[in-house]
Amino acid sequence: MDTQWVETLKYDAQGLIPAIIQDDADGAVLMMAWMNKASLLDTLKTSKTHFWSRSRQKYWMKGEESGNIQEVKSVFYDCDSDVLLFRVNQVGKAACHTGHRSCFYMQATEGGLKDTGEQVFDPAQVYKK
Amino acid sequence: MDTQWVETLKYDAQGLIPAIIQDDADGAVLMMAWMNKASLLDTLKTSKTHFWSRSRQKYWMKGEESGNIQEVKSVFYDCDSDVLLFRVNQVGKAACHTGHRSCFYMQATEGGLKDTGEQVFDPAQVYKK
Repeated sequence: MDTQWVETLKYDAQGLIPAIIQDDADGAVLMMAWMNKASLLDTLKTSKTHFWSRSRQKYWMKGEESGNIQEVKSVFYDCDSDVLLFRVNQVGKAACHTGHRSCFYMQATEGGLKDTGEQVFDPAQVYKK
Repeated sequence: MDTQWVETLKYDAQGLIPAIIQDDADGAVLMMAWMNKASLLDTLKTSKTHFWSRSRQKYWMKGEESGNIQEVKSVFYDCDSDVLLFRVNQVGKAACHTGHRSCFYMQATEGGLKDTGEQVFDPAQVYKK
């Protein structure tokens, strides 16, 4: 893939750009994380999502520990060239380190906060030290 | 709605949090924009999306000029409490100021960049001075 367009994106002061990850099968929004230019280029090269963790100040491949990698099916960016959208095949079904399918499992309802997400795995069983 | 949870979210150094907007009808990701606490509270109060524009340094209601408002159907936040997700009914079908249905109309393919989005309206006809 020609990656010249990667140079034209708008990165923030830390060199980062938000990446929304959507399940290619049914459109569920699985997570949002941040990429820098290197992790974006590796994502394009390998067709597996790579990110930059702001909290850990660390480059990471999604699923490197859990095995729940994301296979990139299609790549988009927005009208302001400052947000990425990836449609992926989520291996292992769950994208969230909590074991939920989606990181957006907490819903604010009229009746208060509710965990309305689907629990796919037990994190204690997957992330062993 | 009890909005105490709004205080528990993680805002960035500018007091902003990313908000992903998804079409409630079919799950299409329409846009991502930024909210501050005031625009989030107004979004919850009115059930219409309000944002903070970083480029214009201005508070705005989505659709205030085009009429293409977004009626909030459900509200989620992620496991890190630093990204919001809204499922909405997109009035007028198009969310993007370019007249595309989604802001993510530019696709990076093996054959180069392609506008694969759906053009809903002519921006010259909608945004008149």
